[in-house]
Amino acid sequence: MSGSRVNSKNEKTVAILKIRARLLDAARSWFKQNNYTEVQGPTIMPAVGDWPGSFEIKYFDKKAYLTQGLQPYASALVADLEKIYTIAPAFRAEKQSTQRHLTEYWRIEAAQQCTLNRILHSEEELIAHVCQALSKEAAEPFKHFNRSTNELANVKTPFPKITYDQAINTLQKEGFNVVWGQKLTQPLEENLSQQFKSPFFITKFPLSFETYFTKSDPKKPELTLSADLIAPEGYMELGSTAQRITQKKILSKRMADENTEPSEAKWYLSLMQKDTPHSGFAIGLERFLQWLCKLEYIKEATAFPRTHDELYP
Amino acid sequence: MSGSRVNSKNEKTVAILKIRARLLDAARSWFKQNNYTEVQGPTIMPAVGDWPGSFEIKYFDKKAYLTQGLQPYASALVADLEKIYTIAPAFRAEKQSTQRHLTEYWRIEAAQQCTLNRILHSEEELIAHVCQALSKEAAEPFKHFNRSTNELANVKTPFPKITYDQAINTLQKEGFNVVWGQKLTQPLEENLSQQFKSPFFITKFPLSFETYFTKSDPKKPELTLSADLIAPEGYMELGSTAQRITQKKILSKRMADENTEPSEAKWYLSLMQKDTPHSGFAIGLERFLQWLCKLEYIKEATAFPRTHDELYP
Repeated sequence: MSGSRVNSKNEKTVAILKIRARLLDAARSWFKQNNYTEVQGPTIMPAVGDWPGSFEIKYFDKKAYLTQGLQPYASALVADLEKIYTIAPAFRAEKQSTQRHLTEYWRIEAAQQCTLNRILHSEEELIAHVCQALSKEAAEPFKHFNRSTNELANVKTPFPKITYDQAINTLQKEGFNVVWGQKLTQPLEENLSQQFKSPFFITKFPLSFETYFTKSDPKKPELTLSADLIAPEGYMELGSTAQRITQKKILSKRMADENTEPSEAKWYLSLMQKDTPHSGFAIGLERFLQWLCKLEYIKEATAFPRTHDELYP
Repeated sequence: MSGSRVNSKNEKTVAILKIRARLLDAARSWFKQNNYTEVQGPTIMPAVGDWPGSFEIKYFDKKAYLTQGLQPYASALVADLEKIYTIAPAFRAEKQSTQRHLTEYWRIEAAQQCTLNRILHSEEELIAHVCQALSKEAAEPFKHFNRSTNELANVKTPFPKITYDQAINTLQKEGFNVVWGQKLTQPLEENLSQQFKSPFFITKFPLSFETYFTKSDPKKPELTLSADLIAPEGYMELGSTAQRITQKKILSKRMADENTEPSEAKWYLSLMQKDTPHSGFAIGLERFLQWLCKLEYIKEATAFPRTHDELYP
C-alpha cells in the first residue's frame, strides 16, 4: 500500500488484505455461533507492574501507556458477560526482529469462565473454523501465496499438545544444548514447529516465564496453567493462553512479590470480581496471516506496518 | 464495570454492552451485504499538518501520534479495494465537556470511490439498518432505557437534509444571534436537533470549518462537499462526512497554505493514488449509543471510559 509497495507488491498486498478481512469475518462468525459477546477494552491504560515494553503517552498531566491486551479488564467483563471476545490493536515498544515482530498488531482475544483445558478447546475450534472457512471462501486470493487451500481444509481439532517438559526432552534428544527452565528461543521453537503439520500447543510453562496473573498448576506449583499456540512448518507462536488467578489474596501477594507499586496493584485488583475459574487466550492476527500465507516478513500481513524502525507512511 | 459502578449501575452497564455488541454486529452485516472490505489502519501515526488535539507518543527516537481516524490511509485503500470500512479506536487529546466527549472512542468509518451524495446515501442506509436490527434483536436490553424499540423501527431513509445556510436561517428566525460563518455550537446544534425526530444531515459547511482534504463545492467554492450527521431529540453530532480532494496538486497547495511541514505533506501525499471521486464518513460509536439509549453522559456507553479527567481503572 505504501509508496514503495504500490507497483511490484500491490497484487499480493491486496490479496492479503482480502484474506485478512475474510479471516476476521470467519473468526467473528465462530464467536457469534458460540455465544461470545464482543467487547472493547481501553487502548490507553494506567501503569500496572511488570509489563515491560509498553509505549508511554503523555495523558494531560498523567503518564499513561498503550495497551498490551484486554487481560486487566477481562476479569470484570467475564464476571458479567461470561464469554467475551475482542479484536483490537495492541502494542509492544520493543526493538525485536522485524521478521516476526510489529510494534502495533491486532489481537483476537477471548476470555471466559472456565479452566485451561476448556479454553484450549475453544481456541483450537476457532483456529480450525477459520482455516476451514478460508479454504472455502478465499481460494482466489490464496493463489498469490505458496499455500494450498487443501492444507487449510485439513486443519482439524484436536490439535497436538505437548508440555513444556516434553518439549525440553524432545529438544535434548535432538542434540540441542538446553536445560529445564530455559526459554524456548526462536531456533528451538522453530525446530519444534518443523515437527508438526498442524498448529499445536505447548502447555504448562514454568512459573518464572509467565506474568503474575497466571495460575499455578495445583499438582506442580513450579508450573503454570498456560499454553502457547505454535504454528507448524517452522513458523512461530500464534498466541498465548492462560488460566488466571481469581483469588484477590493470592494475586495481591504475587504482585507484591514482584514489587508492583501499591497504587498500580489497587486499580488492577479492583477489577477482580468473581472467584470462579477464568481463562483467556490471544491470537496475533498478523502472525496468523504470516503462517497462513507463508510470508517471509510479518509486515506483509498489514497495509501500513509499524516496526521499531518503520513509522511511515 | 469499574468499582463504583458495580452495584447500582451494573445492570444498565451490562445492557449497554449487549446493545453495543449487537450494534457492531448489525453494522458489519450491512457492510458485508454491501461489499465493503474490512480494513485496519495504523493507530500510531507520523505527524501531519493542522490536526490539533492528537496524543503524542515517544516512538523510540521519533515523535508519533495516536490516530484521529483512517482518513490519511483511506485514499490508498480505496484505490485498491473500492469500498472499505474499519471499526477501530480513535483519540482526541482535548479537555472538552465529559458529557459528550471521550478521549478514546471507537469509530465506524467507511470510504469509497463516489461523490458526497452517494456516500450520504450509504451512511443513512447503514444507520437505518442498525436501528431496524436493534429494534428486533435488542428489545430485552433496551428495557433498561427510556427508548422504545418502535422508535428505532421508525428510523427510515432518506434522512432529512438541510444545508448549513438553511441551518443559519432557521436559527436566525428562531431568534438566535448568529451570522453566516459561525460554527454551530452545542446550544445551536441542540436546538436544530430538537426539531427532528430522525437523524438528519447538515450539509455544505464553510471552507474554513473543514480539514484541508475536504473538497470545495464546485458551484460555490466558499462551501465544502461535507456533511454532519446529527441525532434528533436534542442530541449531538453522530458523525462527519466529506468528499475528499483527489488531485495531488490542489491538496499540496492547500497543505502549503495551511503551513504544513513539507515532510509531513510528503508522506501524506504519497498515499494519494487515484483521481476518481472519493468520499468517506465516520460515526462515533459511543455518540450513537448515547442517542440510542438516551444516556446523559457519553461515558455510560463504554465499559472503561477515558475522559480528560478519568484514566482509571
